[in-house]
Amino acid sequence: MTDEKQSAVKAVLDLWNSRIQAADKLFNALTDEQLQNEVSPRRNRGIYLLGHLTAVHDKMLPLLDFEKQLYPHLDDIFLSKPDKAVMEITSAKDLRDYWKDVNSKLSTHFNGLKPEQWFEKHTSVSKEDFIKEPHRNRLNVVIGRTNHLSYHLGQLALLKN
Amino acid sequence: MTDEKQSAVKAVLDLWNSRIQAADKLFNALTDEQLQNEVSPRRNRGIYLLGHLTAVHDKMLPLLDFEKQLYPHLDDIFLSKPDKAVMEITSAKDLRDYWKDVNSKLSTHFNGLKPEQWFEKHTSVSKEDFIKEPHRNRLNVVIGRTNHLSYHLGQLALLKN
Repeated sequence: MTDEKQSAVKAVLDLWNSRIQAADKLFNALTDEQLQNEVSPRRNRGIYLLGHLTAVHDKMLPLLDFEKQLYPHLDDIFLSKPDKAVMEITSAKDLRDYWKDVNSKLSTHFNGLKPEQWFEKHTSVSKEDFIKEPHRNRLNVVIGRTNHLSYHLGQLALLKN
Repeated sequence: MTDEKQSAVKAVLDLWNSRIQAADKLFNALTDEQLQNEVSPRRNRGIYLLGHLTAVHDKMLPLLDFEKQLYPHLDDIFLSKPDKAVMEITSAKDLRDYWKDVNSKLSTHFNGLKPEQWFEKHTSVSKEDFIKEPHRNRLNVVIGRTNHLSYHLGQLALLKN
């Protein structure tokens, strides 16, 4: 493992951690009532985005070959269907707990990886394809998911007073 | 340069390029009139975010040690001041041109870099600090700016019909 490779891993993980912290801070600042608001008229509600982000991060557990998804029942409500398609959705209280739980599990697994393990393939690419496309590794998943989080954080920030 | 290092560079640049393409597609889909709208009531207008992103990307040219900033007159309107603080701002037509110009210049410089040059320091870190913090390199700048772009893209997407 060269210094440069470690630098790349550190840069990616530092940004992931800073965005998770920013999200935690924002969710803590928003009340359950504020989460019921749409980020802009006729757009997603805050609570939908909280569930959506939780489900996407939950699916990183198997994608990164760590463990099974913890809350698969979120997929239908927050991934397959758009906001307001399901009448009774998971409560803000439960979603807040799941969000913390999923990110805490990811953090534990992240901290247990050796730098070179970040360059191993993720589970949705075959061994054959990975030989041709070695950038489809764990680090790449975190880079993509950090941007996905940033995208929705930009929207969630609109819910603040 | 190891394969893994090249993989890290490729993963970061692929995502940068895909986000720039997504932004171009979105800006092309939005009319000048739509850019005058706020992304949510009392929030930034689309045109302000276009100017803001252009100014931030323009400043990457000196930050990455490529060349001087092209449009420094944007800084005061789109970086120092919030939206609606300046009465007469740059036109959408001009901003659209500057946006393309800045990203095109960045792309040319990116394509001219050898993989190992991505791990060289950027210009806002001293040689002394870089020895202690080698992750403060060009690649890290692009990782951060890609997330900044994603954050505002999440907001700009709210302007679509």
